[in-house]
Amino acid sequence: MNYAQESLELHRKLKGKLDIVSRLPITNKTDLSLAYTPGVAQPCVEIHRNPEESYELTGRGNLVAVVTDGTAVLGLGDIGPEAAMPVMEGKCILFREFAGVNAFPICLATKDVDEIIRTVECMAPTFGGINLEDISAPRCFEIERRLKERLSIPVFHDDQHGTAIVVLAGLINALKLTGKKKETARVVISGAGSAGISICRLLMSHGFRDIVMTDKCGALAPGESFMNPAQQEMAAVTNPHQERGSLETIIKDKDIFVGVSAPGIATSAMISTMAPDSIVFAMANPVPEIMPDEAKAGGARVVATGRSDFPNQINNLLAFPGIFRGALDVRASDINEDMKMAAAAAIAGLVTDEELSRDCIIPNPLDKRVSAAVARAVGEAAVRSKVARKVRN
Amino acid sequence: MNYAQESLELHRKLKGKLDIVSRLPITNKTDLSLAYTPGVAQPCVEIHRNPEESYELTGRGNLVAVVTDGTAVLGLGDIGPEAAMPVMEGKCILFREFAGVNAFPICLATKDVDEIIRTVECMAPTFGGINLEDISAPRCFEIERRLKERLSIPVFHDDQHGTAIVVLAGLINALKLTGKKKETARVVISGAGSAGISICRLLMSHGFRDIVMTDKCGALAPGESFMNPAQQEMAAVTNPHQERGSLETIIKDKDIFVGVSAPGIATSAMISTMAPDSIVFAMANPVPEIMPDEAKAGGARVVATGRSDFPNQINNLLAFPGIFRGALDVRASDINEDMKMAAAAAIAGLVTDEELSRDCIIPNPLDKRVSAAVARAVGEAAVRSKVARKVRN
Repeated sequence: MNYAQESLELHRKLKGKLDIVSRLPITNKTDLSLAYTPGVAQPCVEIHRNPEESYELTGRGNLVAVVTDGTAVLGLGDIGPEAAMPVMEGKCILFREFAGVNAFPICLATKDVDEIIRTVECMAPTFGGINLEDISAPRCFEIERRLKERLSIPVFHDDQHGTAIVVLAGLINALKLTGKKKETARVVISGAGSAGISICRLLMSHGFRDIVMTDKCGALAPGESFMNPAQQEMAAVTNPHQERGSLETIIKDKDIFVGVSAPGIATSAMISTMAPDSIVFAMANPVPEIMPDEAKAGGARVVATGRSDFPNQINNLLAFPGIFRGALDVRASDINEDMKMAAAAAIAGLVTDEELSRDCIIPNPLDKRVSAAVARAVGEAAVRSKVARKVRN
Repeated sequence: MNYAQESLELHRKLKGKLDIVSRLPITNKTDLSLAYTPGVAQPCVEIHRNPEESYELTGRGNLVAVVTDGTAVLGLGDIGPEAAMPVMEGKCILFREFAGVNAFPICLATKDVDEIIRTVECMAPTFGGINLEDISAPRCFEIERRLKERLSIPVFHDDQHGTAIVVLAGLINALKLTGKKKETARVVISGAGSAGISICRLLMSHGFRDIVMTDKCGALAPGESFMNPAQQEMAAVTNPHQERGSLETIIKDKDIFVGVSAPGIATSAMISTMAPDSIVFAMANPVPEIMPDEAKAGGARVVATGRSDFPNQINNLLAFPGIFRGALDVRASDINEDMKMAAAAAIAGLVTDEELSRDCIIPNPLDKRVSAAVARAVGEAAVRSKVARKVRN
């Protein structure tokens, strides 16, 4: 199937993938007087007395903004806010279809970091959570960090953390299958942009100790001149053996390769220098760092990609709907590391010991059990880490 | 019925009056690949080539933002953005139920005029139109004026213009019934805030020539010291006979009283000083400037209020859904005076000569024929006044 052409025709026919509908009919004077004036004044008065009532009397508690500036849309780059909308609408329907979360796309006509932050801050009383999407690095780090500081609702940059959570879920099961341990496994992460850095941080939170990140200029290590500030921070806390050099050098003897970089940069020969029973997550899209058959030819025991036409698809659809469902259910003020790790464990836990195999380390992204399991785990983690403001119903 | 208590219970049960739903099911890999990645890249590319395609490939062309800062909500005043939400959600469901327009509430945590303008401007690529709502005067004038200058999508402050359009519609039929003429009718408008000023401007555009506006300090006239800048502007273009004094003085010999001011400020005795067959629109809410039976006792031939429990309800629900439907249908870049007047004429025209009586000068706000008639007239007026960017389907 020619997805590009078919999708274009579908979009032209639909003219929008979302509808905003009323949850109650308005057919007579009573309906109008209760849903609107004069009756509506009373819920307004109650919220004015206690703003927390906005979660009980409006849709805020089940409403997420999907916010972009259109600077890093899919692999298309900086295509602008109007052109980002089809992706944002798509994201919103996934929130709704997979977790019953109302999500609304906001595409911003500014690339200024301060202005994006201030715009989101101004809109915040409307929403129960903010999903940042397709904002280019390194701006996305600062935008997320400052919004998290300023807002009392969860802020989550899915391109960073969604992928990281699903990678961790896959690795939990890949370790189980290969008998490797997180404490001793040697990891190389190829790609030191927003996704790579977020993956690295989450793996470290989970207990991985030996991680080297590489970018197109080589391994991140203290003193290397090519690094931006975010990469310098990572260099200071990774690479315990001070390895230096290209991916080809670094990958040698590693147990795990995680690629969020560029098509075709790894070869069978490179994989064959890894430790036995190696684990290869090649997630460049649509063309991975190495095709699964080549990785297996190089000796990889487990291979995952970002693609739906191979086994073990690392798709953040496994994470974001359940993450926000769980955060909203307990009115969490944040989505923190504990909640992300709980989400990864919940996703991994859905693959039973009987199902677990080299071609089945992760659930199917369309498996609608996933978001409920993730939501439960995330909500519980929010309560444990004291960011929940209410008990789950 | 106790609307306040019933409405509060309804809101507590619903927890939000809006749902954001998918217009297509996502049940298999093909659905996902067409609505989202990888297929969705193609519509993005098309819009990047030609941003106008955002109207053909996304929901923008049927999507209106209902934007408030919560400073003038109903009669409650400055209750803040969270507390404004029940009204904004109500407005959004009326857009949808009466005109099929998708409308989304945005409640802003800022009262700074520049910041409100900039925030709306940043969000504009998301929407096909902006409905400003419940923003206090005189800030609302500047916000609307500057946004109209900056944006190429329609911007409409409903509190000003919605009421004005329905008042004009009612007056068109009241003149017909009483045999009075717009060119010679003498009008007093009580209340020189945003609604009163907007009504005055629209009546003048329609051809009324003799209008005096009064505020609580008296008639607007050049040189009066109590006036704010917006009122000074109005003083310069109204009050042709330089009348001065209180409403009680000014109302004498007037044909038409239009009240958007305060409860109970007019009396039977005052109405009895008006010209014969006087027309009294007493729209303070929930308690009018004068109750209909008292106005009639004073000699009023036609009485209208803002209330649904008396005949002739001046309800802007008659205007805003059809106005935006019409503007969106022809992709208008503005909602101008011609379009507002066309809307008023269309509303008035739905009352047939047979139906027209002192208790029936305006359609029922729940009459679902209205928005289609208004939309058609508004779209045609947009084309005539050259602000339409496409032909109506």
